[in-house]
Amino acid sequence: MAASANTPIRIGIVGYGNLGHGVELALAHNADMRLAGIYTRRDPATVQPQGASAAVHRVGDLPAHAGAIDVLILCGGSKDDLPLQSPALARHFNLVDSFDTHPRIPEHFAAVDRAAKAGQTSALISTGWDPGLFSIQRVMAEALLPDGDTYTFWGKGVSQGHSDALRHVPGVAGGVQYTVPVEAAIEQVRSGTRPRLSTRQKHTRECYVVLKPGADADAVRQAIVAMPAYFAEYDTTVHFISAEELKRDHAAMPHGGFVIRSGHSSKAAKHVMEFSLKLDSNPEFTAGILVAYARAVWRLHQAGQFGAKTVLDVPPALLSPHDGAELRRRLL
Amino acid sequence: MAASANTPIRIGIVGYGNLGHGVELALAHNADMRLAGIYTRRDPATVQPQGASAAVHRVGDLPAHAGAIDVLILCGGSKDDLPLQSPALARHFNLVDSFDTHPRIPEHFAAVDRAAKAGQTSALISTGWDPGLFSIQRVMAEALLPDGDTYTFWGKGVSQGHSDALRHVPGVAGGVQYTVPVEAAIEQVRSGTRPRLSTRQKHTRECYVVLKPGADADAVRQAIVAMPAYFAEYDTTVHFISAEELKRDHAAMPHGGFVIRSGHSSKAAKHVMEFSLKLDSNPEFTAGILVAYARAVWRLHQAGQFGAKTVLDVPPALLSPHDGAELRRRLL
Repeated sequence: MAASANTPIRIGIVGYGNLGHGVELALAHNADMRLAGIYTRRDPATVQPQGASAAVHRVGDLPAHAGAIDVLILCGGSKDDLPLQSPALARHFNLVDSFDTHPRIPEHFAAVDRAAKAGQTSALISTGWDPGLFSIQRVMAEALLPDGDTYTFWGKGVSQGHSDALRHVPGVAGGVQYTVPVEAAIEQVRSGTRPRLSTRQKHTRECYVVLKPGADADAVRQAIVAMPAYFAEYDTTVHFISAEELKRDHAAMPHGGFVIRSGHSSKAAKHVMEFSLKLDSNPEFTAGILVAYARAVWRLHQAGQFGAKTVLDVPPALLSPHDGAELRRRLL
Repeated sequence: MAASANTPIRIGIVGYGNLGHGVELALAHNADMRLAGIYTRRDPATVQPQGASAAVHRVGDLPAHAGAIDVLILCGGSKDDLPLQSPALARHFNLVDSFDTHPRIPEHFAAVDRAAKAGQTSALISTGWDPGLFSIQRVMAEALLPDGDTYTFWGKGVSQGHSDALRHVPGVAGGVQYTVPVEAAIEQVRSGTRPRLSTRQKHTRECYVVLKPGADADAVRQAIVAMPAYFAEYDTTVHFISAEELKRDHAAMPHGGFVIRSGHSSKAAKHVMEFSLKLDSNPEFTAGILVAYARAVWRLHQAGQFGAKTVLDVPPALLSPHDGAELRRRLL
């Protein structure tokens, strides 16, 4: 089932923003895969790939290239791109996406499943680290330790959704929002006491904001901290900085988080399982996950497993370029 | 594929020591499973199960009970029991074992695979937390972050093998050995600097020893710390205690450990993934893992996937009593 070194898996990247750049970078670390092409909605002449040899095409060229691509990695956004692209492309291509709007996963799964079954393709949705690696931890930990509680903490890291929200506040010229887990809450969870924690007790939010000329700082601060759904339920701090500081100190995209399950096997015996990530670059790390799952999708397709899949349906061995015998010998 | 609540999976426990007790305890937390019987090499009349309703039988009765058992959970030792039991029983039963002699896994896998394929059963070997959960982390982390290094630390916890070794030293009446990870080494690994660490730099060994009357403490200490393969490569501390202290302070079986991968997606971006366990009772937690994998084995068998398997071959969703739609909605 392992891909032969002589016939690399041919990958197409759809969408060439931060995540698409990351996928191109990650492919260079995976000798059994090859970048077949980058597909963009922009004019290909205006897109400069990092790798000199990468070909850039229009998204509209995809149907004509179907025979030259084994798996597409979709790098668009969950709000506007993936709900349309994934079902449309799953009709004709194996694919991986990182759809991360949690409440809409069931409908996205259903739409992609219909298309993939009709087209006899394999399409894995919602991979990355959350949803993705964190989901695997949540499912496994609950199954292994049924009498327990699972806690997910995010950060410290940049939340794109919250950053977008604060940029829409009148008087704001630019800004970035960091989600920060409360250290004391993590320690409480790690102790195995299974605390009940409110939203406010788990995370704080830190905003770095550049004001528009003449904007009223107090009014902007009030508008941010009172914003329902995004900030009102949290202790939110707003720092005003210059455009230069924003560019210099806040351009990186670090992130991370923790999934902790604490539970009991008997009255006397408690256990704590913890999975954590500390990432310098959220898009580059996420890209590495998409690439490994593209390998798994190709193998599922070759095994005739058509339809929509998630990370919960993928055996760990399918992610590795190495075969079962080597994995058992070296890593089991 | 989910087991119906009306037809619980019928589990047989083979071997009723610490791990077998733990499995009986764990089954009570899993409503979709039922203890069909406990099988022992001792006289069943001398074995007192924890649960009042559990039936105890001789191992030799197993062939006659084949129709009443869906999956066997083997709770014997890796040295003498499992190399014989797993291949013999896989001929007629689906099963799970916790074979943990790492260098012998390939031959054990081959022997069980032959038997399970001949008998059209599904047999998952070497589960637990290492091999088991830690193996999954090692395989996934390497696949997701190919340019990196993986580090496994164990402890603080009781090592049965090392405890046995020190009990065989002349002059030793009893004792227990704790494997202790070196905190400074863990911190160095977490920092992402990808250090090269020697065996001595990663773990220390702490021995609590009860002397036989008239034994020479210095000679015993020397014999322990110089023992090749077990202690000579480590900084080992020997504490002499009374038989009462051994019983009072060292009867629990805590354990745990860490799998950490640190690597780069590009020159500028490093990432750290960490999975850790902190366990009050090693056998009870391990038992919870065996039970969840017994559920997975039953589903693999129902799907016609015969032969030997490891945790690397099992999709996370198969471990959960809940179906895919619920997992996607609630935990993905």
